[in-house]
Amino acid sequence: MSYKSDIEIAREAKKRPIQEIGAKLGMDADHLLPYGHDKAKISQDFIDGVQGKKNGKLILVTAINPTPAGEGKTTTTVGLGDGLNRIGKRAAICIREASLGPCFGMKGGAAGGGYAQVVPMEEMNLHFTGDFHAITAAHNLLSAMIDNHIYWGNELEIDERRIVWRRVMDMNDRALRDMVVGLGGVPNGFARQTGFDITVASEVMAILCLARNLDDLKKRLGDIIVAYTRDRQPIYARDIGADGAMTVLLKDAMQPNLVQTLENNPAFVHGGPFANIAHGCNSVIATTTALKLADYVVTEAGFGADLGAEKFMNIKCRKAGIAPDVVVLVATVRAMKMNGGVSKADLDQENVAAVAEGCPNLGRHISNLKAFGVPVVVAINHFVTDTDAEIQAIRDAARAEGAEAILCKHWAEGSAGTIELATRVAQLADAGAAQFAPLYRDDMGLFEKIRTIATRIYRADDVLADKKIRDQLRQWEDAGYGHLPICMAKTQYSFSTDPNLRGAPTGHSVPIREVRLSAGAGFVVVICGEIMTMPGLPRKPAALEIGLNEAGDVEGLF
Amino acid sequence: MSYKSDIEIAREAKKRPIQEIGAKLGMDADHLLPYGHDKAKISQDFIDGVQGKKNGKLILVTAINPTPAGEGKTTTTVGLGDGLNRIGKRAAICIREASLGPCFGMKGGAAGGGYAQVVPMEEMNLHFTGDFHAITAAHNLLSAMIDNHIYWGNELEIDERRIVWRRVMDMNDRALRDMVVGLGGVPNGFARQTGFDITVASEVMAILCLARNLDDLKKRLGDIIVAYTRDRQPIYARDIGADGAMTVLLKDAMQPNLVQTLENNPAFVHGGPFANIAHGCNSVIATTTALKLADYVVTEAGFGADLGAEKFMNIKCRKAGIAPDVVVLVATVRAMKMNGGVSKADLDQENVAAVAEGCPNLGRHISNLKAFGVPVVVAINHFVTDTDAEIQAIRDAARAEGAEAILCKHWAEGSAGTIELATRVAQLADAGAAQFAPLYRDDMGLFEKIRTIATRIYRADDVLADKKIRDQLRQWEDAGYGHLPICMAKTQYSFSTDPNLRGAPTGHSVPIREVRLSAGAGFVVVICGEIMTMPGLPRKPAALEIGLNEAGDVEGLF
Repeated sequence: MSYKSDIEIAREAKKRPIQEIGAKLGMDADHLLPYGHDKAKISQDFIDGVQGKKNGKLILVTAINPTPAGEGKTTTTVGLGDGLNRIGKRAAICIREASLGPCFGMKGGAAGGGYAQVVPMEEMNLHFTGDFHAITAAHNLLSAMIDNHIYWGNELEIDERRIVWRRVMDMNDRALRDMVVGLGGVPNGFARQTGFDITVASEVMAILCLARNLDDLKKRLGDIIVAYTRDRQPIYARDIGADGAMTVLLKDAMQPNLVQTLENNPAFVHGGPFANIAHGCNSVIATTTALKLADYVVTEAGFGADLGAEKFMNIKCRKAGIAPDVVVLVATVRAMKMNGGVSKADLDQENVAAVAEGCPNLGRHISNLKAFGVPVVVAINHFVTDTDAEIQAIRDAARAEGAEAILCKHWAEGSAGTIELATRVAQLADAGAAQFAPLYRDDMGLFEKIRTIATRIYRADDVLADKKIRDQLRQWEDAGYGHLPICMAKTQYSFSTDPNLRGAPTGHSVPIREVRLSAGAGFVVVICGEIMTMPGLPRKPAALEIGLNEAGDVEGLF
Repeated sequence: MSYKSDIEIAREAKKRPIQEIGAKLGMDADHLLPYGHDKAKISQDFIDGVQGKKNGKLILVTAINPTPAGEGKTTTTVGLGDGLNRIGKRAAICIREASLGPCFGMKGGAAGGGYAQVVPMEEMNLHFTGDFHAITAAHNLLSAMIDNHIYWGNELEIDERRIVWRRVMDMNDRALRDMVVGLGGVPNGFARQTGFDITVASEVMAILCLARNLDDLKKRLGDIIVAYTRDRQPIYARDIGADGAMTVLLKDAMQPNLVQTLENNPAFVHGGPFANIAHGCNSVIATTTALKLADYVVTEAGFGADLGAEKFMNIKCRKAGIAPDVVVLVATVRAMKMNGGVSKADLDQENVAAVAEGCPNLGRHISNLKAFGVPVVVAINHFVTDTDAEIQAIRDAARAEGAEAILCKHWAEGSAGTIELATRVAQLADAGAAQFAPLYRDDMGLFEKIRTIATRIYRADDVLADKKIRDQLRQWEDAGYGHLPICMAKTQYSFSTDPNLRGAPTGHSVPIREVRLSAGAGFVVVICGEIMTMPGLPRKPAALEIGLNEAGDVEGLF
């Protein structure tokens, strides 16, 4: 049996003009700024005009801890959105934009897969509507203005050793991680050590994804801490005078992008904050706009539920004043097997015992998600080698935690494969059973918030942080940042901070290596372990195979 | 008497949907990829389909040596295009795209002025259709792949000290001119000295502007020399395997952009090669496409005619197989006065003698341009303080060189101010008097080509180049690059290499500081004096004043 590749399926898509897709949600053509015939930005005027409308239901798709077997979070988000439309509901999906740089390293895009994809896939993995380029430009304008301020006399008395604002590029380029700039003498400024991060890791990206409107965007940009003086007083982007110009560079990027699924249903693709050092969710403006236009909005959160869903609940929902009505937790037989200790090479062989062995990972995520007061449904993303007995093992494990597990075949069948899931999700959402509450209160101390996440979500015994880190957190509390939520930066492969500890580990501790204040985005980043903010290219980068074929189509990108 | 600012005029523009503008040139909506309602890219299919059509007439707008008084080259290009349409001709203009970075340094865009502007002005000075961002990404992908190649074993035996490919950013950022990258030990690669240029200075930009189609683009990208081995053998982008992926990143950027003038006439705005170290013209693909669609195409060349028009003739026309039918040389009373020694503060006072004193600059440009075998018309770009006697002095000087000078008031009146110029230009073009020939033959030696430009255009006595430079040129000839044209990099403020020598200097020499091979673009860059490839921000950058006003409009950008 042979299957078509994602890109083959995407190229066969019968796309409708984007104006038709907008019309499904009540947008007329004047309010859609087209980018080609199949992409559009939604005008700010239109967004302003729908603020009085009632919100639709919000459905979060999250997943077990990822394994190399893949779990299909985006694919399930798309499949569920199409399934809801298929059963007659007005539904839209909200996903993140892809970062261009990594596409030239490893193959693999971010637009779903099989018959549950968003199109135009190629453009979504390249420049799309230019949002990330705008973020890069805004970030680097601020960088240039900081060095320029020092060059012309340093009126603000910035300590050149304490500039915390780096530069960004949407490229995997390890040579730029650590560098000395400003060489060459007087005309080039002062030599100092700094580096580049990848654009998705920029605080500007996180800000764009949390800002409610352009005024809020400008305020948050102004709040960015870029450096400190010798006596450790913070210097803000506002002090540098960059917030206005950065807002101008970002004004189009703030408008959500509308595209379509293979089944011609509306998809909001907007924002792509790094799920490592940021919160990893589709933009607040896209999600809240979709909620005004659709009766059901399906969105996803980066990485496993312990990291992605936790940040979705405690950061995005808190800041945006929204709450999920249902959570869909994606699991696969293969990923359960890997959690149960099977190696990737042996995944094709039936192994019910290994599935059952891996299921405590699923069970713990169910229990964690329920603690937020939201009904949980498990979606089993079907793979051809799955056996009935393996699937039943997942159903049993879910039931033991009080959740229903539903088999989905959207990868192979599109919406026809998610009718049962969509029907059940709509029922749960309509029933209004959710009583969402974030995990911790704003007025809890910063360290106490960290401990709450570590013990209640990661099920760790303790948090390890030396005096310097605890002092730093107290200092920020004194400076008025104590009300901020926590943005955990931790491996996605385990509940613990050790990526090799699969399943549902216990008896572990969470060591904090570093804490960072993202005053513009509005959270405190807590780093547990190594966090790479500028990836490198592999030995044989995908770029070597990428090119145009004779028909003018892109080859090798996917 | 008070005037509206450029931006005020631009905001009052009664723009027509871009599909209507395309229809004026026979393009239907399917062949226009819209970017918003007022910008579009022209599809490659459409361009392929019109190749059999007859070319329209090509009109080059160039100028005297620029002075701080301004000469209005782009403004006159727009005004003449509108004037031709007004007298019933089917005309289009072809101009360059603006670089984003410099707009945050000094005020001033690149979309014309007064009532001779191209719109949407704001977007043209910001991200526009993303072409420059794509060039930045393609350039930097190649950079990352070079360092990555070395990191993984350096199979090509690149000498790390002889990597000539830098990185680029569309930002004025002097701290990036000179840096050491790859610090931080083994995981980050090898430490080496390098730097960033501004994106318009990238050879990728020059290539995009000279490539005839995507195949030609890919070939040229592959031809880029990125480094040398220890025994000085060149390493090409093709060897690194980056040419295919770079072509993919540039495929949309290669499609010309269509916008409109204030009078709703078609304007192709595409490409923006640095007029310093590149050829400084609108893209070949835009100009040749416009020639298939319009009966008259008005385009411009960067800087003064000695630099811009020379490169237009000897590089762009040669490579594209096109030839100008008429040249319009823009002069102003104020610029003539400055050439005649008047300071900027005294420009408002009538000074016929100074105008006459400055006119030898004009005369020499006329004579130079005629030497290319093309009829020359002088356009006097009117300013309110000009007196009749001053204007007459320019007319007299032009007549002395056998050229007619025509007063134009497009800045204040739009096309009504260029009826006479448009009529005369159309007559000259229709008469078919031009017998264009470039200044030198392909098979002339590289140094001889340089000497020809220096003595016949700059009217220098001699070219000064030390043995190392002459040897380098001979080496390139031996390596098969002797047929390439020369791309002079010289101050635009004087015929000589001394920016303070205004008027028509004689008795000077042209010292060559450096020569560079742009094997992908296909020219040899000859650098005379200091060339800045990464600008810095001024003490009070324009960014400080840039922001959104309460109506959501951009303030401070212009």
